[in-house]
Amino acid sequence: MKVQGKPYRTIWRKSGSELVVQIIDQRHLPHRFVIEDLKTSDDVVEAINQMHVRGAPLIGITAAYGMCFATHEISSVTNFDDHLSNCTEKLLASRPTAINLAWAVEHMRAVINQADSLQDKQQAAWAEVDALVEEELVRSQQMARHGAEVIHRLAEEKRGKPFNILTHCNAGWLATIDYGTATAPIYQVFQEELNVHVWVDETRPRNQGASLTAWELHQHGVPHTVIADNAGGHLMQQGLVDLVIVGTDRTTRNGDVINKIGTYLKALAAHDNNVPFYVALPSSSLDWSAVSGADVPIEKRSADEVKYVQGQVDGEIKQVLITPAESPALNYGFDVTPARLVTGLITERGVCRASEEGLATLFPEQSHG
Amino acid sequence: MKVQGKPYRTIWRKSGSELVVQIIDQRHLPHRFVIEDLKTSDDVVEAINQMHVRGAPLIGITAAYGMCFATHEISSVTNFDDHLSNCTEKLLASRPTAINLAWAVEHMRAVINQADSLQDKQQAAWAEVDALVEEELVRSQQMARHGAEVIHRLAEEKRGKPFNILTHCNAGWLATIDYGTATAPIYQVFQEELNVHVWVDETRPRNQGASLTAWELHQHGVPHTVIADNAGGHLMQQGLVDLVIVGTDRTTRNGDVINKIGTYLKALAAHDNNVPFYVALPSSSLDWSAVSGADVPIEKRSADEVKYVQGQVDGEIKQVLITPAESPALNYGFDVTPARLVTGLITERGVCRASEEGLATLFPEQSHG
Repeated sequence: MKVQGKPYRTIWRKSGSELVVQIIDQRHLPHRFVIEDLKTSDDVVEAINQMHVRGAPLIGITAAYGMCFATHEISSVTNFDDHLSNCTEKLLASRPTAINLAWAVEHMRAVINQADSLQDKQQAAWAEVDALVEEELVRSQQMARHGAEVIHRLAEEKRGKPFNILTHCNAGWLATIDYGTATAPIYQVFQEELNVHVWVDETRPRNQGASLTAWELHQHGVPHTVIADNAGGHLMQQGLVDLVIVGTDRTTRNGDVINKIGTYLKALAAHDNNVPFYVALPSSSLDWSAVSGADVPIEKRSADEVKYVQGQVDGEIKQVLITPAESPALNYGFDVTPARLVTGLITERGVCRASEEGLATLFPEQSHG
Repeated sequence: MKVQGKPYRTIWRKSGSELVVQIIDQRHLPHRFVIEDLKTSDDVVEAINQMHVRGAPLIGITAAYGMCFATHEISSVTNFDDHLSNCTEKLLASRPTAINLAWAVEHMRAVINQADSLQDKQQAAWAEVDALVEEELVRSQQMARHGAEVIHRLAEEKRGKPFNILTHCNAGWLATIDYGTATAPIYQVFQEELNVHVWVDETRPRNQGASLTAWELHQHGVPHTVIADNAGGHLMQQGLVDLVIVGTDRTTRNGDVINKIGTYLKALAAHDNNVPFYVALPSSSLDWSAVSGADVPIEKRSADEVKYVQGQVDGEIKQVLITPAESPALNYGFDVTPARLVTGLITERGVCRASEEGLATLFPEQSHG
């Protein structure tokens, strides 16, 4: 999507420098737009671990590039296996809970192992990442198209008045390669000149909505307004929300949606006010092995994310303490939105009900276990 | 309640200085405990307008002291009426939406006008504030007692395990003279040695929970944990909340509760998880003239309260920008929790259902109004 009027992706191979990958260092957003060069597998570990990049699909692709670098970091096939194993392990450990990361790293290892010569391994690795990137883009475009159909159908009643979509956290292009998941249908209808406006939940404690979603919508020119996480219920009561779309970190076999903490509260409010509540997800976020949300452990993160807020002051990025220094804080990263509160799931294969039966219509190959 | 081990109120007459009133300048909390002298009606206007004090009951009492100062600011009864009218007007304008403020100022004007000599007016004013303070304290103590009965009854099932209460915003002693409204029952059961623990919603955008409720609970020694506003739903799903108690800015004749933005979302989650949801309120917060929440206009506040967060960094209090500078924000101050989601109202006269019939059992004199 556009940044300062120019199209960008979140990660790309540097033009003219074959062995350099560039990313947007997202730690500086929304205050500064910083592009960073990655040249080694250690650079990649650092970028993932320190959250220069975040979002499951983007983490997966970044890790895959890490495996490409790994193939260049030893000059012969002697001991190549040991080095690749080391790289695999350090990449897997860089963000332990990210499912896409584990899949991408293991997949790349298998591809690299299948090639014989060092040069073949290197070529196979880069070619495979190109293919993974392409698949990721296609998935986002498909979600964009299927989600846009939902929006256009709902927007018919508005007769040209702004169609208001509320979203939580950042399931935007910054979390993927381009387009995003929850934002993909929004960018699609915006391009199709629907009069669309987005309510952006700031999404405490890490404020991914205020810092990332607001930034990407602003840069691309999509009308939006940042709100406190507390405000969404009131907006829905006032008829100011026509649709909620969020992403998901994991959705279980029965349609329960694990997503950023606070999603459940918005789903309750949507249900109480007859506002459609949709979840956009690539099928890689479907966890067929988990029967329901109760099977998914919810990560507790650092209390300091609650006690401190990061922002810009006097031209610098600082963390300010907002609680008594001595007060404890608790920080669950995610919550479970029960399938009963979800109007539909938007996947790359189409839209379905959030239930085992609904998912089986789109993913029949998974319906027997 | 206690601060640094010593009992305090939020406002008091300075010992040994007859014409000086002292307040806690709450702008510096939770980082610094600052006591401020008020000596003139202009000091009072500034303290209310700039939010050195906040909370409807405390604003009312502070304004009443402003009227006392007014009686000393002119040396004869000649032109006294003009001066008193000026003071009345500037005090009324200091926080236009606070109901208790208008009531207190008009009440004090009537009391002052009934006395004849200047000295009588002065004496009558100070005596009347003393009486108002006493009534306020009694109301909080009565809410404490009635609310404590609710808590003890619910806590029986816990058999000594921590009883977890979630609260939103600051309806604490810092918003009143002492004890608070929502916190009054909590301090009561804490004093009675119930094993109680409080989940403190940080309460964006102004973070009154993180900065004020957490501070007062910490200073008084009540176990508590600060959470993001997004977290309460998940905690309730996990069985980690036994009771929600909040305050209210205004409650209408049918039991609809107008309170800090985000209260409605917690009420929805409480309802979805069978967690009792109580509202503590002095009868001065009951608006008999409003049939339902739909009759109450909801204040929009400055967008900057959403875009900036205040906190401490490098020993100073700073505001950090958390959104793109260009992104707009919207900031509704309050929302309406429908009576159907409220388990009960805790008033100084007892506990009742949140309905016209329920309120009529406690306030029969209003039931025909």
